[in-house]
Amino acid sequence: MPRKIILDCDPGHDDAVAMLLAAGNPEIELVGITTIGGNQTLEKVTFNARQVATIAGITAPIHAGCTRPLLRPMRTAADIHGDSGMEIHGYDLPTPDVTVESAHAVDFLIDTIMRHAPGEITLVPTGPLTNIALAVRKEPRIVERVREVVLMGGGYHTGNFSAVAEFNISIDPEAAHIVFHEPWPVTMVGLDLTHQALATKEIEAELTALGGPVAQFVVALFGAFRENYRNAQGFDNPPVHDPCTIAYLIDPEVVSVRKAPLEVELRGEHTAGMTVADFRAPAPAECHTQVAVDLDWRKFWDLVLDAVKALS
Amino acid sequence: MPRKIILDCDPGHDDAVAMLLAAGNPEIELVGITTIGGNQTLEKVTFNARQVATIAGITAPIHAGCTRPLLRPMRTAADIHGDSGMEIHGYDLPTPDVTVESAHAVDFLIDTIMRHAPGEITLVPTGPLTNIALAVRKEPRIVERVREVVLMGGGYHTGNFSAVAEFNISIDPEAAHIVFHEPWPVTMVGLDLTHQALATKEIEAELTALGGPVAQFVVALFGAFRENYRNAQGFDNPPVHDPCTIAYLIDPEVVSVRKAPLEVELRGEHTAGMTVADFRAPAPAECHTQVAVDLDWRKFWDLVLDAVKALS
Amino acid sequence: MPRKIILDCDPGHDDAVAMLLAAGNPEIELVGITTIGGNQTLEKVTFNARQVATIAGITAPIHAGCTRPLLRPMRTAADIHGDSGMEIHGYDLPTPDVTVESAHAVDFLIDTIMRHAPGEITLVPTGPLTNIALAVRKEPRIVERVREVVLMGGGYHTGNFSAVAEFNISIDPEAAHIVFHEPWPVTMVGLDLTHQALATKEIEAELTALGGPVAQFVVALFGAFRENYRNAQGFDNPPVHDPCTIAYLIDPEVVSVRKAPLEVELRGEHTAGMTVADFRAPAPAECHTQVAVDLDWRKFWDLVLDAVKALS
Amino acid sequence: MPRKIILDCDPGHDDAVAMLLAAGNPEIELVGITTIGGNQTLEKVTFNARQVATIAGITAPIHAGCTRPLLRPMRTAADIHGDSGMEIHGYDLPTPDVTVESAHAVDFLIDTIMRHAPGEITLVPTGPLTNIALAVRKEPRIVERVREVVLMGGGYHTGNFSAVAEFNISIDPEAAHIVFHEPWPVTMVGLDLTHQALATKEIEAELTALGGPVAQFVVALFGAFRENYRNAQGFDNPPVHDPCTIAYLIDPEVVSVRKAPLEVELRGEHTAGMTVADFRAPAPAECHTQVAVDLDWRKFWDLVLDAVKALS
Repeated sequence: MPRKIILDCDPGHDDAVAMLLAAGNPEIELVGITTIGGNQTLEKVTFNARQVATIAGITAPIHAGCTRPLLRPMRTAADIHGDSGMEIHGYDLPTPDVTVESAHAVDFLIDTIMRHAPGEITLVPTGPLTNIALAVRKEPRIVERVREVVLMGGGYHTGNFSAVAEFNISIDPEAAHIVFHEPWPVTMVGLDLTHQALATKEIEAELTALGGPVAQFVVALFGAFRENYRNAQGFDNPPVHDPCTIAYLIDPEVVSVRKAPLEVELRGEHTAGMTVADFRAPAPAECHTQVAVDLDWRKFWDLVLDAVKALS
Repeated sequence: MPRKIILDCDPGHDDAVAMLLAAGNPEIELVGITTIGGNQTLEKVTFNARQVATIAGITAPIHAGCTRPLLRPMRTAADIHGDSGMEIHGYDLPTPDVTVESAHAVDFLIDTIMRHAPGEITLVPTGPLTNIALAVRKEPRIVERVREVVLMGGGYHTGNFSAVAEFNISIDPEAAHIVFHEPWPVTMVGLDLTHQALATKEIEAELTALGGPVAQFVVALFGAFRENYRNAQGFDNPPVHDPCTIAYLIDPEVVSVRKAPLEVELRGEHTAGMTVADFRAPAPAECHTQVAVDLDWRKFWDLVLDAVKALS
Repeated sequence: MPRKIILDCDPGHDDAVAMLLAAGNPEIELVGITTIGGNQTLEKVTFNARQVATIAGITAPIHAGCTRPLLRPMRTAADIHGDSGMEIHGYDLPTPDVTVESAHAVDFLIDTIMRHAPGEITLVPTGPLTNIALAVRKEPRIVERVREVVLMGGGYHTGNFSAVAEFNISIDPEAAHIVFHEPWPVTMVGLDLTHQALATKEIEAELTALGGPVAQFVVALFGAFRENYRNAQGFDNPPVHDPCTIAYLIDPEVVSVRKAPLEVELRGEHTAGMTVADFRAPAPAECHTQVAVDLDWRKFWDLVLDAVKALS
Repeated sequence: MPRKIILDCDPGHDDAVAMLLAAGNPEIELVGITTIGGNQTLEKVTFNARQVATIAGITAPIHAGCTRPLLRPMRTAADIHGDSGMEIHGYDLPTPDVTVESAHAVDFLIDTIMRHAPGEITLVPTGPLTNIALAVRKEPRIVERVREVVLMGGGYHTGNFSAVAEFNISIDPEAAHIVFHEPWPVTMVGLDLTHQALATKEIEAELTALGGPVAQFVVALFGAFRENYRNAQGFDNPPVHDPCTIAYLIDPEVVSVRKAPLEVELRGEHTAGMTVADFRAPAPAECHTQVAVDLDWRKFWDLVLDAVKALS
């Protein structure tokens, strides 16, 4: 039986690939897509989600969520994702043929979780955690019904927004604090892992060889993503963060994990937004948080390639 | 035309009096009551609101809201409000004959504000600001439609939760930060003002002289309130905080105010939850916050007495 | 027997008046003057101290101390004290005829305190508390030998550096934390008190009437001080902060005080450098800190006038 | 010409080995030893330094420094170093035959640095940085005269006092902030490096084979150190932190380093005392801080063994 997930995302180049992997792999049932202001404004990322759904024939409902973080001022990652949030070269993005549902993402999250049996819905946030935090504060009972939360964000020894903090968590660390502190199982797929998920020229060639509009879309995405990542952070190949969460859910062998107590630093002058993992001793039995450590790079890209093929 | 308000409260002895004053004064139209965990748990304060509504014949809908603060652990004020949240001696509280609506307080707030014309609804929070914060993050457009926010909380030179911070704000300072930073007009009726609103023996005598069940209820409330305030904070007469907000809306002459930039301190070791007012210079023209300074004690109690009489 | 004090200062207009009051009143024995970067750089305030000593015939040794705060970047108050730190109009400041001793202020403080009997030396800091903090960390035994610390700085309900924090404390709050936390008696003469010590035109006239070079110097000082305070903070008459400490030591009736636990806020976003006094309950018996509350304005200025007369 | 160093330490098992390595290697000239409260109280670590000097015939002057950190309460590491600060089994520590000089460590540091030519003295702190911080605030000119600071403390990806912070820095992070922010060259030999410097049974056997009282002393030291480290932190072999600084000075090939901007986090709730290294990009040319990365374990122990042999 496929795993039922809600993807809470801010497409975003790598969010787009996460959508494709979730939609194109039979182990995953994409129950819904919720959007959140992050890589770009809510309006832009929601539009981008509709474009990706149109390209890939994704029919899961799309619900727009929060426009900004709980406390901190809104920040976007235009240096990485461009002015549109999904900058692309040499590919004509379609006019979306799917609409946005009227219900707010927070209500869709609550209603979907409460409508399903306990343990059925897995949450996969790949942007700031504002929607999830609001949902859990508005309806605390979702915590015991959610199967697990597998999120892209943070990093135990790696930062991009600052020396030690990652963008998604830094944008809304208070939301992350809320999500990390609820007693549901949390898997943090952070930069330590996702900086291994590099889209090399080799992968681009394999995608090109697949042919078809979805593969063409991904190749074009990676072109712009590579260029932006090189200019902004000096990477040769862009790290494709967000689909690592889906890959972990499809096949836990692709992403090794380690249990560790996790905290979000809210106050540090040099560490605000840092995800603090305590590796000093084996995690206690009641520890409900774990971090992703090692990626099987080849298996990961095979999953992505298979999904792209399936959607074509 | 009466002022349309939503009272967002956590009864609470003084919240109960705020309900009575709002319901019993013709200048105020009580559009709804929303509840919030604070003085006691959400469950208890919601039950208390229903009891007060039953006693006073209040028909405004009651919607329950959030059970806990955004980030900080839940704290109640049982030392002041007792185990029930509305401890009372020598009065038999009735079984409520009014129910709680099914919609969440956050949605009731949003829907009511959006359904009314801009400038029609005034928000009167007298507990932690979690409901209001969630509403404004879920639906940012409420900010431009709300007429003003008149809240009980904070204090520019007075604290009770700590040397410099007040209970409602300290319990959920992040929610207060959200509310204070939105550009709607905010009037902070803080401890500097409400510590003037003392329920003396003289006032108790006047209430007793009024007769009737509502007056009896208030007299009994004040008895327990006085005792708790004396034991917990050394007051001879209890400060009846929350109705000061309503009194200000009925007659601005009862509560003098001063414009000043306001911030909520989130990080201080000794000042977390403090409301910082800047009085060093005249407030700039665009300043949208003001603080309550002086209470006309006699006029205030006359308003309360009149409302109690009207409800009998 | 006169009170033996060490004046730790950063002249500064009002520091200069503190020097004069200490030197000109028979109840005070000025054992030494130590200087500290604050109102202006160490070099400038030390030079200014030598000038004041020259004008008034002060023979107490002058020792230069720290150039900058413990942690925070150096800040001066040039808006109030001018580029020289003792801006003056219509008065020719003399070339100093007194020198600076070779020993560092921190060592002079330690040696003097340790050489005297316990309870003999009173410390009177009127600038940032860096020298005192270094002395107490280098030689902890001074704490039990000092009679008391009477400092100008802070404010329980008044700020000038920020809405709630005063300059001397804000410049080096970590040093203040060290000084406030040692168990010696601390009297904080803060802005709540010193904003009462206004040098009115009436006082200027009385000084002018005294005649003599010291009075001329003070009148000229007040002229520039008034102008700067008006421009920088909107005062009609400048508050002459620092001599209030000396006045309190001469005659406790001039400055009323109140015992209260005191903390220095080091971390607040809006409250860093605030001195937090807890007035919620009577101070506990072991409380070693007190704050100055009310100034007898007339008596204060009579003390200053008498000292100026005595020095002429 | 040997490198002139002042060792600022809190012996401490590994401080003792640092003393021996400094005294027993011809590349190092031990100009003086200053002590600081840390692993145990100042009194105890100063006594221990005298014992080590007695055992090894060290004649460098010993000066006692600060008893406690600048701001934070005094903490010791009795779990690791025992009640004496240098717990040892099966070895009779001698009555010291060397005395403590009368000058304070802070003054010895300042005077020695100022007496030598610029670039002659290297500071090697292996405890909390309070002495160095006080010296630099009392006499800022030492900064340009010191050749470099090579300190044991911190860690960029490893903690022991907390998940991400090390003991020496956490005990007095404000002192560390002062030392890291001065423009002298700073090499941080942190836990990332020193957790590689494990004293295995193999090393103990080699030391035992050396024979002589100094080797016997070290073997006995390691016995107690191993036991304490196992019980407190789960190590099989104890990490011998402090001599890694000396080894780096003797032979930079033993300790590889990497330039990186370094900050000390003072305010974090979960990160206070963390040393934050920014590895996101190559360090800028003006970067004056570097961190130790890899230890040549065999070469390191050969240096220690050679020194022990030389001292016998």
